[in-house]
Amino acid sequence: MHRTYSMRQSRAPTASQIQNPPPPPSSTKTGRFFGKANIGHNFRKSAAGAFGPDLAKKLSQLVKMDKNVMRSMELVARERMEVAQQLSIWGEACDDDVSDVTDKLGVLIYEIGELEDQFVDRYDQYRVTMKSIRNIEASVQPSRDRKQKITDQIAQLKYKEPNSPKIVVLEQELVRAEAESLVAEAQLSNITREKLKSAFTYQFDALREHCEKLAIIAGYGKHLLELVDDTPVTPGETRQAYDGYDASKAIIQDCEDALTNWVEKNAAVSSKLSTRARTLSQRRKARHHSGEGVDLSGQDQPLERESGLWVPASEHRGGEYEEEEDDDEAPSTVNGESRGRDEERAVA
Amino acid sequence: MHRTYSMRQSRAPTASQIQNPPPPPSSTKTGRFFGKANIGHNFRKSAAGAFGPDLAKKLSQLVKMDKNVMRSMELVARERMEVAQQLSIWGEACDDDVSDVTDKLGVLIYEIGELEDQFVDRYDQYRVTMKSIRNIEASVQPSRDRKQKITDQIAQLKYKEPNSPKIVVLEQELVRAEAESLVAEAQLSNITREKLKSAFTYQFDALREHCEKLAIIAGYGKHLLELVDDTPVTPGETRQAYDGYDASKAIIQDCEDALTNWVEKNAAVSSKLSTRARTLSQRRKARHHSGEGVDLSGQDQPLERESGLWVPASEHRGGEYEEEEDDDEAPSTVNGESRGRDEERAVA
Repeated sequence: MHRTYSMRQSRAPTASQIQNPPPPPSSTKTGRFFGKANIGHNFRKSAAGAFGPDLAKKLSQLVKMDKNVMRSMELVARERMEVAQQLSIWGEACDDDVSDVTDKLGVLIYEIGELEDQFVDRYDQYRVTMKSIRNIEASVQPSRDRKQKITDQIAQLKYKEPNSPKIVVLEQELVRAEAESLVAEAQLSNITREKLKSAFTYQFDALREHCEKLAIIAGYGKHLLELVDDTPVTPGETRQAYDGYDASKAIIQDCEDALTNWVEKNAAVSSKLSTRARTLSQRRKARHHSGEGVDLSGQDQPLERESGLWVPASEHRGGEYEEEEDDDEAPSTVNGESRGRDEERAVA
Repeated sequence: MHRTYSMRQSRAPTASQIQNPPPPPSSTKTGRFFGKANIGHNFRKSAAGAFGPDLAKKLSQLVKMDKNVMRSMELVARERMEVAQQLSIWGEACDDDVSDVTDKLGVLIYEIGELEDQFVDRYDQYRVTMKSIRNIEASVQPSRDRKQKITDQIAQLKYKEPNSPKIVVLEQELVRAEAESLVAEAQLSNITREKLKSAFTYQFDALREHCEKLAIIAGYGKHLLELVDDTPVTPGETRQAYDGYDASKAIIQDCEDALTNWVEKNAAVSSKLSTRARTLSQRRKARHHSGEGVDLSGQDQPLERESGLWVPASEHRGGEYEEEEDDDEAPSTVNGESRGRDEERAVA
């Protein structure tokens, strides 16, 4: 495994860290009465993959861990909206300028919370797509098991009764099992790649949109702060009357327009590849197209497509896991407040 | 209050939503066994501001709610790093291309988790700055109370013993109390504005940097996905050998370079003001500079600065709350694992 870049222990400070040295670690990171993680999260993580086929165990765990991430992101979103409301409530009792600006800051922060909430919905699309890989993994396991079982039976018979007529029957069965297995493995290979790509494309697109929108909000937030008159007054001196109501409202409107009009093709942040990376990626692609490089596609003859064993990827559903998953998602009686949204979803 | 923009109940879809219709709500949003929020978070929120001066109650609650947000963000960061590791573990058993790409995706997602963790530290700076406003609020309360108490005593005496010599003494005391109160209120006014501005400037700068970096990572993640060969194979057919190791490593290096070199002045996302908002903001500023508009600064004569009552904002500490806060932050015996970082922090 090439894990050079995940193993790095200490790193040189980034340019931004040199410009703004990082703050001390947050005080919230130590000392907590109720444990570090939600008890449900720990349970979900450790129970994942305990049942179900071996092949799908690791991915089952990943899917469960993604669910933990989503629940936590949801919590952040909800708590951020609460912070926004409290900020506005606090500001109400202050002077006019502080009151107006904190209220408008509250609007922006509430918007961040709403965007975070929307991002959770989109992250779920990534998760259900990964889940469909887990389902195909789970469905491939039985055909592997069957092939193995027949092979074992033949070996046993050949040792005990080398002339048994059963051996011929079993060998014919093995040929059929191998054919079925070949199809299953091809399905696994195709679906894994297709779904992996679409799952992460979905996640990264959603992440980019989410982040650019938050950065836009941060920029308008800084414009709002300009409206607070922070020239110090001496005791007894009264501040100039605040007349920024129109300006603050215009800033919020500008911000809303910017968010409303954001589309992917206007994305501001670019992730350009260096010449080297681009060349390496393109050389690979070109080689594949010209059929150069190691081409092993001829070493096994493809089975006939008419064999009837082939199920197109689009019609494949898996399904071994659905029940277990439903358990987890059944509305609890304690906190089963429905958000009034439609619960049904097609497994992507 | 101008809350037009926080009251909106339903909104027209944004341009981006029209391009990519939003997904159904996430399945994680309903049905949970262990309640919606961490029990500690609910306790912290409801207990905040229950003690301490009235004036600082609302802001105390805000500070506590911000702590909840931070704890939840921390959880997201930690769980995301776990997801990154699990993704790499799952991919290891897959074919070469899937194995390499999932490992590299894991590196990127782990990086997101690390950035989220750093953002929590920076959010804490915002929080401690807001806390210093709460402290000045708490310290202003006694001087308000004292003024009120003396006023009440005088009124009572004038009713009971109109000729009492005590009245004169009390009236002199009231003049002193009023002077002290004037200073306290000026301090409150100055420090609130100064700290509010710096707290949110800090938060928005941190948010912008965080978001732009995540958007950069998302872009490179999409480049990585290009390396997965998703042309479908027929059963028995073998895929071309994977030769993208150099390309994937180069992409990760490009990404790391982009993150390392990010500085604020290169921020890609801009939050431009419309002409109207700019004019409104600037007119305000110009008016303030020319002294136009309602200027009430002459109606009260400022006290002499030599009165000795004046404490510069920079030397002000508040402090009434420190003990309560420490209670909350005391390492618990259950999960008191120290992250090995320095716990001390100057109240900004």
